[in-house]
Amino acid sequence: MRIKLTVSYDGTDFCGWQVQPNGVTVQRTLADAIFELTGEKVVLTGSGRTDAGVHAEGQVAHFDTQSFIPPEKFYLALNALLPSSVKVINSERVADDFDACRTAKKKTYEYSFYKSEVELPLKERFATRISKTVDVEKMRAVATAFVGTHDFKAFCASGSAVKTTTRTIYNIDITEAGADVKISVCGNGFLYNMVRILAGTLLSAGEGKLDKATAEKMLTVGDRTLGGKTCPAKGLTLKSVEY
Amino acid sequence: MRIKLTVSYDGTDFCGWQVQPNGVTVQRTLADAIFELTGEKVVLTGSGRTDAGVHAEGQVAHFDTQSFIPPEKFYLALNALLPSSVKVINSERVADDFDACRTAKKKTYEYSFYKSEVELPLKERFATRISKTVDVEKMRAVATAFVGTHDFKAFCASGSAVKTTTRTIYNIDITEAGADVKISVCGNGFLYNMVRILAGTLLSAGEGKLDKATAEKMLTVGDRTLGGKTCPAKGLTLKSVEY
Repeated sequence: MRIKLTVSYDGTDFCGWQVQPNGVTVQRTLADAIFELTGEKVVLTGSGRTDAGVHAEGQVAHFDTQSFIPPEKFYLALNALLPSSVKVINSERVADDFDACRTAKKKTYEYSFYKSEVELPLKERFATRISKTVDVEKMRAVATAFVGTHDFKAFCASGSAVKTTTRTIYNIDITEAGADVKISVCGNGFLYNMVRILAGTLLSAGEGKLDKATAEKMLTVGDRTLGGKTCPAKGLTLKSVEY
Repeated sequence: MRIKLTVSYDGTDFCGWQVQPNGVTVQRTLADAIFELTGEKVVLTGSGRTDAGVHAEGQVAHFDTQSFIPPEKFYLALNALLPSSVKVINSERVADDFDACRTAKKKTYEYSFYKSEVELPLKERFATRISKTVDVEKMRAVATAFVGTHDFKAFCASGSAVKTTTRTIYNIDITEAGADVKISVCGNGFLYNMVRILAGTLLSAGEGKLDKATAEKMLTVGDRTLGGKTCPAKGLTLKSVEY
Protein backbone atom coordinates (compact mmCIF):
# COMPACT_ATOMS: atom_id res chain seq x y z
CA MET A 1 0.00 0.00 0.00
CA ARG A 2 1.37 3.41 -0.98
CA ILE A 3 0.94 6.32 1.44
CA LYS A 4 1.22 10.01 0.57
CA LEU A 5 2.32 12.33 3.38
CA THR A 6 2.02 16.12 3.47
CA VAL A 7 4.74 17.46 5.72
CA SER A 8 5.56 20.80 7.35
CA TYR A 9 8.92 21.65 8.90
CA ASP A 10 10.94 24.47 10.39
CA GLY A 11 14.13 24.00 8.38
CA THR A 12 16.34 26.10 10.68
CA ASP A 13 18.04 23.20 12.42
CA PHE A 14 17.91 20.62 9.60
CA CYS A 15 20.60 19.89 7.00
CA GLY A 16 17.85 20.00 4.37
CA TRP A 17 15.46 17.28 3.23
CA GLN A 18 17.73 14.64 1.74
CA VAL A 19 19.47 11.97 3.85
CA GLN A 20 23.17 12.73 4.24
CA PRO A 21 26.02 10.87 5.92
CA ASN A 22 26.35 13.63 8.54
CA GLY A 23 23.74 15.92 10.03
CA VAL A 24 20.04 15.60 10.81
CA THR A 25 17.74 15.74 7.78
CA VAL A 26 13.95 15.84 7.50
CA GLN A 27 13.86 12.67 5.37
CA ARG A 28 15.87 10.72 7.98
CA THR A 29 13.74 12.08 10.86
CA LEU A 30 10.54 10.96 9.10
CA ALA A 31 11.95 7.58 8.02
CA ASP A 32 13.06 6.94 11.62
CA ALA A 33 9.56 7.74 12.92
CA ILE A 34 8.02 5.39 10.31
CA PHE A 35 10.46 2.67 11.40
CA GLU A 36 9.59 3.23 15.05
CA LEU A 37 5.88 3.00 14.22
CA THR A 38 5.83 0.09 11.75
CA GLY A 39 9.17 -1.69 12.14
CA GLU A 40 9.69 -1.17 8.40
CA LYS A 41 12.76 0.42 6.84
CA VAL A 42 10.97 2.32 4.08
CA VAL A 43 12.24 4.30 1.09
CA LEU A 44 10.75 7.75 1.56
CA THR A 45 10.55 9.74 -1.69
CA GLY A 46 10.06 13.51 -1.44
CA SER A 47 8.72 15.84 -4.15
CA GLY A 48 12.26 17.20 -4.32
CA ARG A 49 15.06 18.24 -2.02
CA THR A 50 14.91 21.39 0.02
CA ASP A 51 18.22 22.98 1.02
CA ALA A 52 19.50 23.30 4.57
CA GLY A 53 17.47 26.00 6.33
CA VAL A 54 14.56 26.01 3.88
CA HIS A 55 11.13 25.56 5.50
CA ALA A 56 8.06 23.71 4.27
CA GLU A 57 4.34 24.10 4.79
CA GLY A 58 3.35 21.40 2.33
CA GLN A 59 6.23 19.16 1.27
CA VAL A 60 4.91 15.87 -0.16
CA ALA A 61 6.47 12.41 0.19
CA HIS A 62 5.43 8.80 -0.42
CA PHE A 63 6.42 5.37 0.85
CA ASP A 64 5.14 1.79 0.67
CA THR A 65 4.06 -0.11 3.75
CA GLN A 66 2.56 -3.44 4.84
CA SER A 67 1.26 -1.84 8.03
CA PHE A 68 -2.36 -2.26 9.13
CA ILE A 69 -2.52 1.31 10.44
CA PRO A 70 -5.35 3.06 8.54
CA PRO A 71 -3.73 5.38 5.96
CA GLU A 72 -5.73 8.41 7.12
CA LYS A 73 -4.54 7.86 10.72
CA PHE A 74 -0.84 7.55 9.88
CA TYR A 75 -0.17 11.27 10.39
CA LEU A 76 -1.48 11.25 13.97
CA ALA A 77 0.59 8.21 14.92
CA LEU A 78 3.72 9.69 13.30
CA ASN A 79 3.24 13.11 14.94
CA ALA A 80 3.36 11.48 18.38
CA LEU A 81 6.89 10.29 17.50
CA LEU A 82 8.16 13.38 15.63
CA PRO A 83 9.89 16.45 17.13
CA SER A 84 8.11 19.85 17.11
CA SER A 85 10.24 20.93 14.16
CA VAL A 86 8.60 18.48 11.73
CA LYS A 87 4.97 17.35 11.62
CA VAL A 88 2.83 15.43 9.14
CA ILE A 89 -0.32 17.42 8.37
CA ASN A 90 -2.06 14.80 6.24
CA SER A 91 -1.75 11.13 5.23
CA GLU A 92 -3.75 9.22 2.63
CA ARG A 93 -3.61 6.10 0.50
CA VAL A 94 -2.64 6.75 -3.13
CA ALA A 95 -2.43 4.59 -6.26
CA ASP A 96 0.73 2.48 -6.63
CA ASP A 97 1.86 4.60 -9.58
CA PHE A 98 1.75 7.85 -7.58
CA ASP A 99 5.29 9.20 -7.28
CA ALA A 100 5.84 12.24 -5.05
CA CYS A 101 8.81 13.29 -7.21
CA ARG A 102 8.02 12.21 -10.79
CA THR A 103 4.30 12.96 -10.93
CA ALA A 104 4.51 16.43 -9.33
CA LYS A 105 2.85 18.98 -11.65
CA LYS A 106 3.18 22.30 -9.80
CA LYS A 107 5.23 23.59 -6.88
CA THR A 108 4.74 26.86 -5.06
CA TYR A 109 7.52 28.50 -3.08
CA GLU A 110 7.27 31.66 -1.02
CA TYR A 111 10.18 33.93 -0.18
CA SER A 112 9.68 36.28 2.79
CA PHE A 113 11.46 39.59 3.31
CA TYR A 114 10.96 42.39 5.80
CA LYS A 115 11.91 46.04 5.41
CA SER A 116 13.81 47.35 8.40
CA GLU A 117 16.89 49.35 9.25
CA VAL A 118 17.51 47.00 12.21
CA GLU A 119 17.56 43.19 12.37
CA LEU A 120 14.29 42.17 14.10
CA PRO A 121 14.48 39.11 16.40
CA LEU A 122 10.81 38.22 15.81
CA LYS A 123 11.21 38.24 12.01
CA GLU A 124 14.71 36.82 11.47
CA ARG A 125 13.87 33.12 11.73
CA PHE A 126 11.51 33.09 8.76
CA ALA A 127 12.44 36.11 6.65
CA THR A 128 15.35 38.08 5.21
CA ARG A 129 15.83 41.74 6.04
CA ILE A 130 15.89 44.21 3.14
CA SER A 131 16.28 47.96 2.72
CA LYS A 132 13.27 50.20 3.29
CA THR A 133 13.89 51.69 -0.16
CA VAL A 134 13.11 48.47 -2.10
CA ASP A 135 10.38 49.28 -4.64
CA VAL A 136 7.88 46.46 -5.06
CA GLU A 137 6.54 47.92 -8.32
CA LYS A 138 10.02 47.63 -9.86
CA MET A 139 10.18 44.00 -8.68
CA ARG A 140 6.81 43.26 -10.30
CA ALA A 141 7.85 44.83 -13.60
CA VAL A 142 10.96 42.63 -13.85
CA ALA A 143 9.15 39.49 -12.61
CA THR A 144 7.05 39.43 -15.80
CA ALA A 145 10.23 38.55 -17.75
CA PHE A 146 10.48 35.21 -15.93
CA VAL A 147 6.89 34.00 -16.29
CA GLY A 148 6.49 31.35 -19.00
CA THR A 149 8.76 28.59 -20.33
CA HIS A 150 12.43 29.57 -20.39
CA ASP A 151 15.92 28.14 -20.14
CA PHE A 152 16.77 29.02 -16.53
CA LYS A 153 20.47 28.06 -16.83
CA ALA A 154 21.41 31.46 -15.35
CA PHE A 155 19.32 30.63 -12.24
CA CYS A 156 21.03 27.38 -11.43
CA ALA A 157 23.81 26.97 -8.89
CA SER A 158 26.94 25.49 -10.46
CA GLY A 159 27.63 21.82 -9.88
CA SER A 160 24.07 20.55 -10.37
CA ALA A 161 23.58 17.72 -12.86
CA VAL A 162 20.22 17.97 -14.62
CA LYS A 163 19.10 16.84 -18.11
CA THR A 164 17.54 20.16 -18.99
CA THR A 165 17.53 23.62 -17.46
CA THR A 166 14.21 24.55 -19.12
CA ARG A 167 11.37 25.13 -16.66
CA THR A 168 7.95 26.78 -16.74
CA ILE A 169 6.96 29.45 -14.24
CA TYR A 170 3.17 29.82 -14.13
CA ASN A 171 3.10 32.98 -12.05
CA ILE A 172 5.02 35.21 -9.66
CA ASP A 173 3.02 37.18 -7.09
CA ILE A 174 4.71 39.92 -5.11
CA THR A 175 2.80 41.30 -2.13
CA GLU A 176 3.59 44.02 0.38
CA ALA A 177 1.82 44.35 3.75
CA GLY A 178 3.30 46.73 6.30
CA ALA A 179 7.02 45.91 6.49
CA ASP A 180 6.56 42.45 4.96
CA VAL A 181 7.31 41.69 1.31
CA LYS A 182 6.58 38.23 -0.09
CA ILE A 183 7.42 36.67 -3.44
CA SER A 184 5.30 33.66 -4.34
CA VAL A 185 6.54 31.60 -7.30
CA CYS A 186 4.57 28.77 -8.88
CA GLY A 187 6.21 26.55 -11.50
CA ASN A 188 6.41 23.01 -12.88
CA GLY A 189 9.76 22.48 -11.18
CA PHE A 190 12.80 24.36 -9.96
CA LEU A 191 16.54 23.96 -10.47
CA TYR A 192 18.98 23.85 -7.56
CA ASN A 193 18.93 27.32 -5.89
CA MET A 194 16.64 28.66 -8.65
CA VAL A 195 14.10 30.31 -6.32
CA ARG A 196 16.84 31.85 -4.17
CA ILE A 197 18.63 33.30 -7.24
CA LEU A 198 15.28 34.47 -8.68
CA ALA A 199 14.42 36.19 -5.36
CA GLY A 200 17.86 37.82 -5.21
CA THR A 201 17.49 39.04 -8.78
CA LEU A 202 14.01 40.50 -8.11
CA LEU A 203 15.43 42.17 -5.02
CA SER A 204 18.17 43.78 -7.15
CA ALA A 205 15.38 45.00 -9.44
CA GLY A 206 13.56 46.47 -6.43
CA GLU A 207 16.75 48.29 -5.47
CA GLY A 208 16.90 49.79 -8.99
CA LYS A 209 20.11 47.89 -9.83
CA LEU A 210 18.64 45.66 -12.54
CA ASP A 211 16.04 46.31 -15.26
CA LYS A 212 13.78 44.09 -17.33
CA ALA A 213 16.16 44.11 -20.32
CA THR A 214 18.94 42.68 -18.13
CA ALA A 215 16.52 40.07 -16.75
CA GLU A 216 15.64 39.02 -20.32
CA LYS A 217 19.33 38.88 -21.21
CA MET A 218 19.93 36.54 -18.24
CA LEU A 219 17.48 34.11 -19.84
CA THR A 220 18.72 34.41 -23.44
CA VAL A 221 22.47 34.47 -22.69
CA GLY A 222 22.27 32.20 -19.61
CA ASP A 223 24.67 34.33 -17.61
CA ARG A 224 24.33 33.94 -13.81
CA THR A 225 26.62 36.91 -13.14
CA LEU A 226 24.04 39.37 -14.54
CA GLY A 227 21.59 38.50 -11.71
CA GLY A 228 21.33 39.38 -8.03
CA LYS A 229 22.74 37.52 -5.05
CA THR A 230 21.50 34.09 -4.00
CA CYS A 231 19.13 34.90 -1.14
CA PRO A 232 19.67 33.09 2.18
CA ALA A 233 17.73 29.85 2.73
CA LYS A 234 15.82 30.94 5.85
CA GLY A 235 13.34 33.22 4.04
CA LEU A 236 12.21 30.38 1.77
CA THR A 237 9.22 28.08 2.33
CA LEU A 238 7.92 25.28 0.09
CA LYS A 239 4.20 26.07 0.33
CA SER A 240 2.59 23.29 -1.70
CA VAL A 241 3.03 20.60 -4.34
CA GLU A 242 0.21 19.74 -6.74
CA TYR A 243 -0.29 16.46 -8.61
CA MET B 1 22.82 61.40 30.69
CA ARG B 2 19.78 59.11 30.69
CA ILE B 3 19.18 56.90 27.65
CA LYS B 4 15.89 55.22 26.71
CA LEU B 5 16.16 52.01 24.71
CA THR B 6 13.36 50.30 22.77
CA VAL B 7 14.16 46.59 22.61
CA SER B 8 12.84 43.58 20.69
CA TYR B 9 13.60 39.96 21.58
CA ASP B 10 12.72 36.39 20.78
CA GLY B 11 12.08 35.16 24.31
CA THR B 12 12.29 31.44 23.46
CA ASP B 13 15.78 30.87 24.80
CA PHE B 14 15.79 33.50 27.57
CA CYS B 15 14.90 33.01 31.24
CA GLY B 16 12.80 36.17 30.98
CA TRP B 17 13.78 39.83 31.29
CA GLN B 18 15.01 40.14 34.86
CA VAL B 19 18.58 39.26 35.92
CA GLN B 20 18.65 35.93 37.80
CA PRO B 21 21.46 34.03 39.51
CA ASN B 22 21.19 31.22 36.92
CA GLY B 23 20.21 31.36 33.27
CA VAL B 24 20.55 33.92 30.49
CA THR B 25 18.19 36.90 30.74
CA VAL B 26 17.51 39.77 28.35
CA GLN B 27 18.45 42.38 30.97
CA ARG B 28 21.84 40.73 31.60
CA THR B 29 22.52 40.34 27.86
CA LEU B 30 21.82 44.06 27.29
CA ALA B 31 23.77 45.18 30.38
CA ASP B 32 26.74 43.08 29.22
CA ALA B 33 26.64 44.71 25.76
CA ILE B 34 26.49 48.20 27.37
CA PHE B 35 29.49 47.27 29.54
CA GLU B 36 31.41 46.00 26.52
CA LEU B 37 30.63 49.26 24.66
CA THR B 38 31.14 51.85 27.41
CA GLY B 39 33.08 50.09 30.16
CA GLU B 40 30.28 51.10 32.55
CA LYS B 41 28.39 48.71 34.81
CA VAL B 42 24.96 50.29 34.46
CA VAL B 43 21.65 49.69 36.22
CA LEU B 44 19.25 48.85 33.42
CA THR B 45 15.59 49.43 34.36
CA GLY B 46 12.92 47.80 32.20
CA SER B 47 9.24 48.82 31.94
CA GLY B 48 8.52 45.56 33.75
CA ARG B 49 9.56 41.95 33.79
CA THR B 50 8.57 39.58 31.04
CA ASP B 51 8.41 35.87 31.93
CA ALA B 52 10.65 33.19 30.48
CA GLY B 53 9.60 32.56 26.87
CA VAL B 54 7.66 35.80 26.43
CA HIS B 55 8.68 37.85 23.38
CA ALA B 56 8.91 41.62 22.91
CA GLU B 57 8.57 43.95 19.96
CA GLY B 58 8.83 47.14 22.00
CA GLN B 59 10.10 46.58 25.54
CA VAL B 60 11.47 49.85 26.98
CA ALA B 61 14.42 50.28 29.34
CA HIS B 62 16.57 53.14 30.61
CA PHE B 63 20.07 53.58 32.04
CA ASP B 64 22.47 56.40 32.90
CA THR B 65 25.81 56.80 31.16
CA GLN B 66 28.84 59.11 31.02
CA SER B 67 29.64 57.87 27.52
CA PHE B 68 30.28 60.27 24.63
CA ILE B 69 28.48 58.02 22.13
CA PRO B 70 25.62 60.09 20.64
CA PRO B 71 22.34 58.84 22.24
CA GLU B 72 20.66 58.30 18.86
CA LYS B 73 23.60 56.09 17.73
CA PHE B 74 23.66 53.86 20.81
CA TYR B 75 21.32 51.28 19.30
CA LEU B 76 23.55 50.68 16.27
CA ALA B 77 26.65 50.25 18.43
CA LEU B 78 24.82 47.89 20.81
CA ASN B 79 23.33 45.81 17.99
CA ALA B 80 26.80 45.03 16.72
CA LEU B 81 27.49 43.39 20.10
CA LEU B 82 24.12 41.71 20.69
CA PRO B 83 23.01 38.22 19.57
CA SER B 84 20.28 37.83 16.89
CA SER B 85 17.75 37.02 19.60
CA VAL B 86 17.79 40.54 21.07
CA LYS B 87 18.17 43.86 19.25
CA VAL B 88 17.72 47.52 20.17
CA ILE B 89 15.39 49.20 17.68
CA ASN B 90 15.73 52.74 18.98
CA SER B 91 17.82 54.79 21.42
CA GLU B 92 17.31 58.38 22.52
CA ARG B 93 18.23 60.79 25.29
CA VAL B 94 15.46 61.38 27.82
CA ALA B 95 15.01 63.69 30.83
CA ASP B 96 16.67 62.57 34.08
CA ASP B 97 13.26 61.96 35.67
CA PHE B 98 12.17 59.51 32.94
CA ASP B 99 11.74 56.09 34.51
CA ALA B 100 11.01 53.13 32.17
CA CYS B 101 9.12 51.38 34.97
CA ARG B 102 7.47 54.09 37.09
CA THR B 103 6.44 56.55 34.37
CA ALA B 104 4.94 53.92 32.00
CA LYS B 105 1.32 54.91 31.17
CA LYS B 106 0.11 52.16 28.82
CA LYS B 107 1.32 48.72 27.84
CA THR B 108 0.05 46.61 24.97
CA TYR B 109 0.45 42.84 24.89
CA GLU B 110 -0.56 40.54 22.06
CA TYR B 111 -1.38 36.86 22.48
CA SER B 112 -1.21 34.72 19.32
CA PHE B 113 -3.14 31.51 18.71
CA TYR B 114 -3.61 29.38 15.61
CA LYS B 115 -6.48 27.01 14.86
CA SER B 116 -5.25 23.61 13.74
CA GLU B 117 -5.84 19.94 14.39
CA VAL B 118 -2.07 19.37 14.04
CA GLU B 119 0.86 21.18 15.67
CA LEU B 120 2.40 23.34 12.91
CA PRO B 121 6.21 23.72 13.01
CA LEU B 122 6.08 27.16 11.33
CA LYS B 123 3.60 28.54 13.88
CA GLU B 124 4.67 26.89 17.15
CA ARG B 125 7.49 29.26 18.07
CA PHE B 126 5.31 32.34 18.32
CA ALA B 127 1.77 31.05 18.88
CA THR B 128 -0.33 28.54 20.80
CA ARG B 129 -2.46 25.98 18.99
CA ILE B 130 -6.19 25.97 19.69
CA SER B 131 -9.21 23.98 18.53
CA LYS B 132 -10.83 24.84 15.20
CA THR B 133 -14.14 25.16 17.04
CA VAL B 134 -13.12 28.21 19.13
CA ASP B 135 -15.67 30.95 18.49
CA VAL B 136 -14.15 34.42 18.35
CA GLU B 137 -17.54 36.11 18.79
CA LYS B 138 -17.97 34.37 22.14
CA MET B 139 -14.49 35.55 23.16
CA ARG B 140 -15.38 39.14 22.22
CA ALA B 141 -18.61 39.02 24.22
CA VAL B 142 -16.80 37.94 27.41
CA ALA B 143 -13.85 40.32 26.85
CA THR B 144 -16.14 43.32 27.40
CA ALA B 145 -16.43 42.26 31.08
CA PHE B 146 -12.73 42.95 31.63
CA VAL B 147 -12.46 46.39 30.02
CA GLY B 148 -12.34 49.22 32.57
CA THR B 149 -10.92 49.53 36.08
CA HIS B 150 -11.29 46.34 38.12
CA ASP B 151 -9.68 44.38 40.92
CA PHE B 152 -7.85 41.70 38.92
CA LYS B 153 -6.95 39.57 41.96
CA ALA B 154 -8.39 36.50 40.18
CA PHE B 155 -5.95 37.11 37.29
CA CYS B 156 -2.80 37.13 39.38
CA ALA B 157 -0.50 34.13 39.86
CA SER B 158 -0.13 33.25 43.52
CA GLY B 159 3.05 34.32 45.29
CA SER B 160 3.31 37.80 43.77
CA ALA B 161 3.70 40.70 46.19
CA VAL B 162 1.99 43.86 44.93
CA LYS B 163 0.42 46.80 46.77
CA THR B 164 -2.83 46.67 44.83
CA THR B 165 -4.39 44.26 42.36
CA THR B 166 -6.54 46.98 40.77
CA ARG B 167 -5.65 47.72 37.15
CA THR B 168 -7.29 49.44 34.18
CA ILE B 169 -7.72 47.72 30.84
CA TYR B 170 -8.34 50.30 28.10
CA ASN B 171 -9.30 47.84 25.40
CA ILE B 172 -9.18 44.24 24.23
CA ASP B 173 -9.14 43.60 20.47
CA ILE B 174 -9.67 40.08 19.18
CA THR B 175 -8.95 39.48 15.50
CA GLU B 176 -9.21 36.40 13.30
CA ALA B 177 -7.41 36.06 9.94
CA GLY B 178 -7.34 32.63 8.32
CA ALA B 179 -6.20 30.20 11.04
CA ASP B 180 -4.70 32.98 13.18
CA VAL B 181 -6.47 34.43 16.22
CA LYS B 182 -4.90 37.32 18.12
CA ILE B 183 -5.87 38.97 21.40
CA SER B 184 -4.46 42.45 21.88
CA VAL B 185 -4.76 43.89 25.41
CA CYS B 186 -3.92 47.47 26.32
CA GLY B 187 -3.84 48.52 29.97
CA ASN B 188 -2.11 50.78 32.48
CA GLY B 189 -0.21 47.81 33.90
CA PHE B 190 -0.48 44.06 34.37
CA LEU B 191 -0.13 41.72 37.33
CA TYR B 192 2.14 38.68 37.24
CA ASN B 193 0.67 36.22 34.65
CA MET B 194 -2.39 38.47 34.21
CA VAL B 195 -2.33 38.49 30.39
CA ARG B 196 -1.76 34.73 30.25
CA ILE B 197 -4.68 34.03 32.63
CA LEU B 198 -6.85 36.56 30.75
CA ALA B 199 -6.02 34.87 27.43
CA GLY B 200 -6.76 31.42 28.88
CA THR B 201 -10.08 32.67 30.25
CA LEU B 202 -11.09 34.21 26.91
CA LEU B 203 -10.14 30.94 25.21
CA SER B 204 -12.45 29.05 27.62
CA ALA B 205 -15.16 31.52 26.61
CA GLY B 206 -14.44 30.80 22.93
CA GLU B 207 -14.84 27.08 23.67
CA GLY B 208 -18.25 27.79 25.23
CA LYS B 209 -17.05 26.74 28.71
CA LEU B 210 -17.36 30.16 30.35
CA ASP B 211 -19.92 32.95 29.99
CA LYS B 212 -19.89 36.68 30.74
CA ALA B 213 -21.63 36.22 34.11
CA THR B 214 -18.82 33.92 35.27
CA ALA B 215 -16.22 36.40 33.99
CA GLU B 216 -17.90 39.17 36.01
CA LYS B 217 -18.01 36.91 39.07
CA MET B 218 -14.23 36.31 38.70
CA LEU B 219 -13.76 40.07 39.13
CA THR B 220 -16.23 40.59 42.00
CA VAL B 221 -15.36 37.46 43.98
CA GLY B 222 -11.68 37.38 43.02
CA ASP B 223 -11.66 33.64 42.43
CA ARG B 224 -8.89 32.41 40.09
CA THR B 225 -10.41 28.92 39.87
CA LEU B 226 -13.43 30.22 37.93
CA GLY B 227 -11.18 31.20 34.99
CA GLY B 228 -9.42 29.31 32.20
CA LYS B 229 -5.90 27.89 32.15
CA THR B 230 -2.80 30.09 32.23
CA CYS B 231 -1.76 30.16 28.54
CA PRO B 232 1.84 29.20 27.70
CA ALA B 233 4.40 32.02 27.50
CA LYS B 234 5.45 31.51 23.89
CA GLY B 235 2.29 33.01 22.33
CA LEU B 236 2.76 36.28 24.21
CA THR B 237 4.50 39.41 22.92
CA LEU B 238 4.96 42.78 24.65
CA LYS B 239 4.13 45.04 21.70
CA SER B 240 4.67 48.52 23.09
CA VAL B 241 4.98 50.72 26.17
CA GLU B 242 3.73 54.29 26.13
CA TYR B 243 4.85 57.15 28.41
